[in-house]
Amino acid sequence: MPEALSFPMIDGERLRRFMDEVSAFGATKGGGVDRPAGTREHGRARDWLRGQLEAAGLRVAIDPIGNLFGILEWAGPDAPLILTGSHLDSQPNGGRFDGAYGVVASLEAILALKGHAQAHGLSPRCNLALVDWMNEEGARFQPSLLGSSVFGGQLTLDYALSRKDGDGVSVETALRETGYLGKDEAPNPVSYLEMHVECGGDLEASGRKIGPFARHWGALKVKIKVTGRQTHTGPTPMAHRQDALLGAAYLIAAIRDLSPRAADTLYTSVGRIEVIPNSPNIVPGEALLFAELRSPEMAVLEWAEGELNAALGPCADKAGVRAEILSIDRRPAGRFAPGLVRLAQEEAEDLGLSTQTLDTIGGHDAIPVLARCPAIVVAVPSVGGICHNAVEFTPHEDLENGTRLLTRMLWRLDRMDGRPSGT
Amino acid sequence: MPEALSFPMIDGERLRRFMDEVSAFGATKGGGVDRPAGTREHGRARDWLRGQLEAAGLRVAIDPIGNLFGILEWAGPDAPLILTGSHLDSQPNGGRFDGAYGVVASLEAILALKGHAQAHGLSPRCNLALVDWMNEEGARFQPSLLGSSVFGGQLTLDYALSRKDGDGVSVETALRETGYLGKDEAPNPVSYLEMHVECGGDLEASGRKIGPFARHWGALKVKIKVTGRQTHTGPTPMAHRQDALLGAAYLIAAIRDLSPRAADTLYTSVGRIEVIPNSPNIVPGEALLFAELRSPEMAVLEWAEGELNAALGPCADKAGVRAEILSIDRRPAGRFAPGLVRLAQEEAEDLGLSTQTLDTIGGHDAIPVLARCPAIVVAVPSVGGICHNAVEFTPHEDLENGTRLLTRMLWRLDRMDGRPSGT
Repeated sequence: MPEALSFPMIDGERLRRFMDEVSAFGATKGGGVDRPAGTREHGRARDWLRGQLEAAGLRVAIDPIGNLFGILEWAGPDAPLILTGSHLDSQPNGGRFDGAYGVVASLEAILALKGHAQAHGLSPRCNLALVDWMNEEGARFQPSLLGSSVFGGQLTLDYALSRKDGDGVSVETALRETGYLGKDEAPNPVSYLEMHVECGGDLEASGRKIGPFARHWGALKVKIKVTGRQTHTGPTPMAHRQDALLGAAYLIAAIRDLSPRAADTLYTSVGRIEVIPNSPNIVPGEALLFAELRSPEMAVLEWAEGELNAALGPCADKAGVRAEILSIDRRPAGRFAPGLVRLAQEEAEDLGLSTQTLDTIGGHDAIPVLARCPAIVVAVPSVGGICHNAVEFTPHEDLENGTRLLTRMLWRLDRMDGRPSGT
Repeated sequence: MPEALSFPMIDGERLRRFMDEVSAFGATKGGGVDRPAGTREHGRARDWLRGQLEAAGLRVAIDPIGNLFGILEWAGPDAPLILTGSHLDSQPNGGRFDGAYGVVASLEAILALKGHAQAHGLSPRCNLALVDWMNEEGARFQPSLLGSSVFGGQLTLDYALSRKDGDGVSVETALRETGYLGKDEAPNPVSYLEMHVECGGDLEASGRKIGPFARHWGALKVKIKVTGRQTHTGPTPMAHRQDALLGAAYLIAAIRDLSPRAADTLYTSVGRIEVIPNSPNIVPGEALLFAELRSPEMAVLEWAEGELNAALGPCADKAGVRAEILSIDRRPAGRFAPGLVRLAQEEAEDLGLSTQTLDTIGGHDAIPVLARCPAIVVAVPSVGGICHNAVEFTPHEDLENGTRLLTRMLWRLDRMDGRPSGT
């Protein structure tokens, strides 16, 4: 069979088995997984992946921030390398597909390519590597996208290793305890491809099957401290109270009210609050809020940051407390590699899969990776657009479609020496 | 010296030493104590008290809910018994004086009375007992006033022992681990006296020295559950979010707004919130609020409960969530024993100490004890009216005044066979 006419075929049942196996680690009653980065369950899932990589004959490498790689150096040491993967860590009580699907799809794609090349006696031009990024979710350790941001150069290794969870345990300690504090060098890719479930309802609404991400929204991740005075809830006269939780409540409402003022271009949320001392009969002395503002337009984020700053004083005054911004993690809006978007569209068309280019509002490891090489995330539908929840679900057929597309894209990229045209 | 003219004298330096010693258990950098009920630090403070009781020749008894007694049976087994005490547990990061002062004052008063009777060859008519109630604060285990409520019959022993902290540890386990799961019978008092720092600024504002509590406010302690839907903060369109924390914030503001509608007769607060999963980039799926509504008038509490119920729907709707009341712990308003209020006023006058009768808004162990015998709490000033905070402070002179008063009240009550007149 002429090389140009032969295409690698994935093994749908093997893909299903991979998904089932990886979903066992941290499995929750609700059908999801609870596998935050650096936990024992996360470590066990990574051990499973490591076993699969070794069984497939890939060389395992773990870099100093705990990114786990499986490298197929079949085109020689000087050949370009194409990277593909996602992350095995999950949100607390999160879903099975977010992250894990991209890792498993990459594993199946590499196995399919390997089998295809052997069966047809084809010589690959590029090496391949699978990656499982450390701490994409940012649930236990902040910031999110930790491993990929060290890879992309946005964070220093020291900073990343010294991040601590709520109990004071550092990333370094968690990596050491789970066996993923590595010393290997990360591979140096010429392209990066990531499959992901959509975490939004656009594909489901439009009935399209494949969603290459063209743009990624920017985000401000803001920590706000509200300081009141800790007193007894009983005798303290209402006028003398300085209730940090009340001030926090006013701020949560004010942050929500920003969104409709920049409709469809500003998403806001407060997902986490820490109250001190958080006792039923004590007026809270302190509250820490973790807010997020997201927009595809940097100008909107700048406007929103100004409005948030302006809201701090009035909200605090109303509760007789003080409010201040402790830190802002600014993540710029931008574009994924246009050449990879086109490649995804072309290959999907060849496979008979309808496409719709999308924006991604959530963060993805591909975003920091863009600083090093062309990168893209390609989405498959998620039922109800739900993510970060145990009920998150994508039918197996859609998982197969995405994996089939990834395999084709990798193969086409291989023929292009790993570099998409026009990027 | 004729008996009627002789009065027991307290040892001010011993009182100071007792305060210093007990403040070492769970001492915090800020000068307060962190000694929630059933913790190791709480157990160590109780061990210290036990040692003092034994050194003073009192018989130690621990009842099945962990109330610790020191009994001076010097008037014979059939004589009436007068009980005095308070609690050694504290709020997390609480103050040195709240509770501990009443225990230490009782210890000093009993020692003073013992010395006095021996020095003058006087025969007591009543037995005396000191009590350190288990879990007054309700910080680690809810409800508060746990040990005194089992004593007063408001809670069953089984219910109280099975209460659990946030980590699932039961009261029974915590008592066993600290050595305070007792088998002794609690003494059966004819009167109960408790000294306490004011936790409110009225005495300081008026310049009075002694504040017998005449009334205690009622309280509704309400647990409210807000149920949303856990999704990703990024891609989930704002209109599709069901943000439990946002609903909780609207409720916190609404609960605060109840208070001015019944000015000076209604205090409201939300001191504790639990958010699930409480991750920065997840729209919260669930929030649990611990609210308190306090009033001296039961009719106001009934009105407030109705208004709170009416606010649930609109607050929840505004955030696209559901809100429901999980439980309400209703604590009725009422009066302390009038005969003991008069006794405190008379004895304070004899000592040249100015008085002001007060209401107590916070709960005190004396309230459940009222179901068994006449009881009272008598306050000494607290600087700034601050309580449940490390900066809580009462000058030693005021501590001495209160202890002097308690000693005199106990002695006068002894002469009255433990029963205040007119109650």
